[in-house]
Amino acid sequence: MSTITTTADKELFIKMVLSNWEMQISRMNNLLAKLSDAELAHPTASGRNTGVYLLGHLAAIGDGMFIFLGLGEKLNPAIYELFVSNPENSGLEKPSIAELKEYWNKVNDELAQKINSMPVDEWFSRHTAVKEEDFAKEPHRNKLNIVINRTNHLSYHLGQLAYLVSK
Amino acid sequence: MSTITTTADKELFIKMVLSNWEMQISRMNNLLAKLSDAELAHPTASGRNTGVYLLGHLAAIGDGMFIFLGLGEKLNPAIYELFVSNPENSGLEKPSIAELKEYWNKVNDELAQKINSMPVDEWFSRHTAVKEEDFAKEPHRNKLNIVINRTNHLSYHLGQLAYLVSK
Repeated sequence: MSTITTTADKELFIKMVLSNWEMQISRMNNLLAKLSDAELAHPTASGRNTGVYLLGHLAAIGDGMFIFLGLGEKLNPAIYELFVSNPENSGLEKPSIAELKEYWNKVNDELAQKINSMPVDEWFSRHTAVKEEDFAKEPHRNKLNIVINRTNHLSYHLGQLAYLVSK
Repeated sequence: MSTITTTADKELFIKMVLSNWEMQISRMNNLLAKLSDAELAHPTASGRNTGVYLLGHLAAIGDGMFIFLGLGEKLNPAIYELFVSNPENSGLEKPSIAELKEYWNKVNDELAQKINSMPVDEWFSRHTAVKEEDFAKEPHRNKLNIVINRTNHLSYHLGQLAYLVSK
């Protein structure tokens, strides 16, 4: 009985975190559906990142989650380099908007698939960027915490991307 | 034994959610410390809300949490009206920046105090905006979920407020 109760609590908690993640992904998809390619290429504010850069950035940060969650390698490490390790004005050649949208969808589809088949207890294990000795003292730094953190990161940039929509 | 294990799991979930909430509050405080009153009064982007309005808005949304979490009434319903029910250009008279900062700190201090003494199981009970019959079907719509949701809301506007910092 003890295991059953605990697993149910954990499943509920996983659902809370994942449903918030999915809600922000779907807000991003709604926003993308509203914007033309030309609008997406605008700076989100004067002198700030364009929508295209933020799309590449968010897709690449999503791609980085495979590693943190122990789910495999990045789908496209080269795009990660362009949109996370380097700023917009790096002068490096970037993929087209169509390619970035495809990448964004591919990352999210594959993440959703792998996330939804992750065993319950796996979520409460150490994420790969925390050392074992630190995790022993701070067990809240688990894989599920990565999703909470990345959901906030997505919300942060969604607030900026919203400025591309004409008032 | 079953109860002890479950309570420990629940305490861990609560810590995960609250530590992310506190992290965003402290990012907001760091941002406020960096900005002069004149900078805070600027629009975050051309034709968009000023930092002052977003400060009032975030403080008021925090104030609204007392009700959702069943922790009491709003500290200042009039400010909520000005910064949530009404847009920036409402023409209504607004408090000074000093008053808004004081309100922001008071809301967060009082919230932290009440939140930290909330019993573990209380977090997994229905938040007051969900009907009992809906909660029976969707138990993830609990009080802790309100904090996850409000953390994302804070992150969203933090992304916009960050544009007030000169590059």
